[in-house]
Amino acid sequence: MGKKYSVCLDIGGTKVLGAIFDENKEIIYRLKKKTKESGDDSANVEQVIIGVVDEMIRESGIKKSEIRGIAAGAPGVIDQAKGIVLTSPNLPWTNYDIKTPIEKRFGVPFQIGNDVNVGVLGEYKYGAAKGYKNIVGFFVGTGMGGGLILDGTLFTGNQFKAAEYGHMILDPEGPLCGCGQRGCLEAFSSKKGMSAYILQQAGRGRETMLADKIENGVFKSKYLKKALKAQDAVTMEAVDRACHYLAVATGNMINTISPDIVVYGGGVIEAVGDIFLQKILAEVDRYCMPAIRPSVELKTAALGDDSVIYGALSMLEG
Amino acid sequence: MGKKYSVCLDIGGTKVLGAIFDENKEIIYRLKKKTKESGDDSANVEQVIIGVVDEMIRESGIKKSEIRGIAAGAPGVIDQAKGIVLTSPNLPWTNYDIKTPIEKRFGVPFQIGNDVNVGVLGEYKYGAAKGYKNIVGFFVGTGMGGGLILDGTLFTGNQFKAAEYGHMILDPEGPLCGCGQRGCLEAFSSKKGMSAYILQQAGRGRETMLADKIENGVFKSKYLKKALKAQDAVTMEAVDRACHYLAVATGNMINTISPDIVVYGGGVIEAVGDIFLQKILAEVDRYCMPAIRPSVELKTAALGDDSVIYGALSMLEG
Repeated sequence: MGKKYSVCLDIGGTKVLGAIFDENKEIIYRLKKKTKESGDDSANVEQVIIGVVDEMIRESGIKKSEIRGIAAGAPGVIDQAKGIVLTSPNLPWTNYDIKTPIEKRFGVPFQIGNDVNVGVLGEYKYGAAKGYKNIVGFFVGTGMGGGLILDGTLFTGNQFKAAEYGHMILDPEGPLCGCGQRGCLEAFSSKKGMSAYILQQAGRGRETMLADKIENGVFKSKYLKKALKAQDAVTMEAVDRACHYLAVATGNMINTISPDIVVYGGGVIEAVGDIFLQKILAEVDRYCMPAIRPSVELKTAALGDDSVIYGALSMLEG
Repeated sequence: MGKKYSVCLDIGGTKVLGAIFDENKEIIYRLKKKTKESGDDSANVEQVIIGVVDEMIRESGIKKSEIRGIAAGAPGVIDQAKGIVLTSPNLPWTNYDIKTPIEKRFGVPFQIGNDVNVGVLGEYKYGAAKGYKNIVGFFVGTGMGGGLILDGTLFTGNQFKAAEYGHMILDPEGPLCGCGQRGCLEAFSSKKGMSAYILQQAGRGRETMLADKIENGVFKSKYLKKALKAQDAVTMEAVDRACHYLAVATGNMINTISPDIVVYGGGVIEAVGDIFLQKILAEVDRYCMPAIRPSVELKTAALGDDSVIYGALSMLEG
């Protein structure tokens, strides 16, 4: 038999996505589970992970002895080498060693990294950025994540804190961002940023079908898609604004890094990536140095919601 | 005897700075020479370099046989590996192989790189950034140059075009930059950007001692120093604005890269670096993510106008 299965997780603030890959890198089992219900302390999140892995093994029918490793992406600043979550905005983890208990429990190697970093790794190894060397990834979801592959290696900077260019300031007098700054890319172009604009316009008495769908400051991407299809005017304005600032930020990253490719991923892109890419492409030349623009491609993620799952797989491939 | 001398050059659009280092990395001879007078074609710039090196050898009294190598920083996009200047904004070079003729003429290795990249290398090897691993360098001069050292290696990106974050857009509706974009850092914070502001204010009839000193769109840094000392109001506004946008750009680079250190160099910093650093430090916390700010230091260059010369030396040291 041999150790042929890789168990890969995408741990979010509210849900865990799981997949088991066989030795041909085919997904043989999938699982999606809410996490919030199980409580808020570190040990409980750990228990959720253990519970999810146990359930995946049980339901898929594979044997524990056939697992070669477990890997995960999670939000936050993560010491990938040591498997320690240093801080996380959405999970109750501070300097939390998650590697030791998971490896002890399952007896196989466990790898963990920042979810967007891992997602960009996934696109690099198996997706839209395969074959490129210098990669800038924007992940558009509830927030705005960033990931950098430089000279073929994930770049994590000093203390694993790099690639937060979702918090690049594009207007120092712009709207307040959750991070405390004003006018960050995230404040314009994430689901939170677009939701804030939509609620603001609804508050002025304008009709928009997306306002009612906003819960805890965000809409689900499928409702964004519906509203765009229905040509909801306020939604279209929010998207135009989001894409305008994404184009500026893309230009800035192109001028800064001179990457081979810029990849856009995350839930919003999975839902309406074609519209976003079209709008960004229509504007981005204005915000790139003419000498740099010709040597960079812009693409949407190829793995959709599975970018992180595949990135986790790549961490086990070494 | 032996080959103990390194001949190092800082080739600018209008002048060449030269230095000969001995085996203890002491400068034993210096030269400064205007380049413009000698014509505008590639062969002439090459002749100027050859003339400068010849003159340095002659005047310093060293023997040609004692030279171990020649190295230079020059403005533009430069293939450092091959010694080819791909494009240059200020020199008449396009896809120009400068390495071959210089090596042929002097019979020693010749290295060349982008001047700001080489300047940041100099600060990394011998200056303010010594001992750090991830370094963001801003060079404030006529324009605004950038250099990135990542994991201890100069990062040049795809086709050697990286680190143009002087053209990071901080206000898409801002003043026009020489590059064609609007609201670039360079348009606010370089000598060109500050000069444009000062001329604009002078045009409104405001008194300022710096306006008369602006030639071809720029002032000399020594006049900036004098005007600040005299508390010239318009100059102080231009500097406040320059430092405000430098602080925003610094925050953006800190959030993007999570460097160990940000170094400010170039002519303006050599002249009034203490004032710039103080103003940037007073504001930068607003534009950094709180989790990232504590692990980065901000410093002015230690080598002053010699950053590029020392960086050139480091290229010969391998």
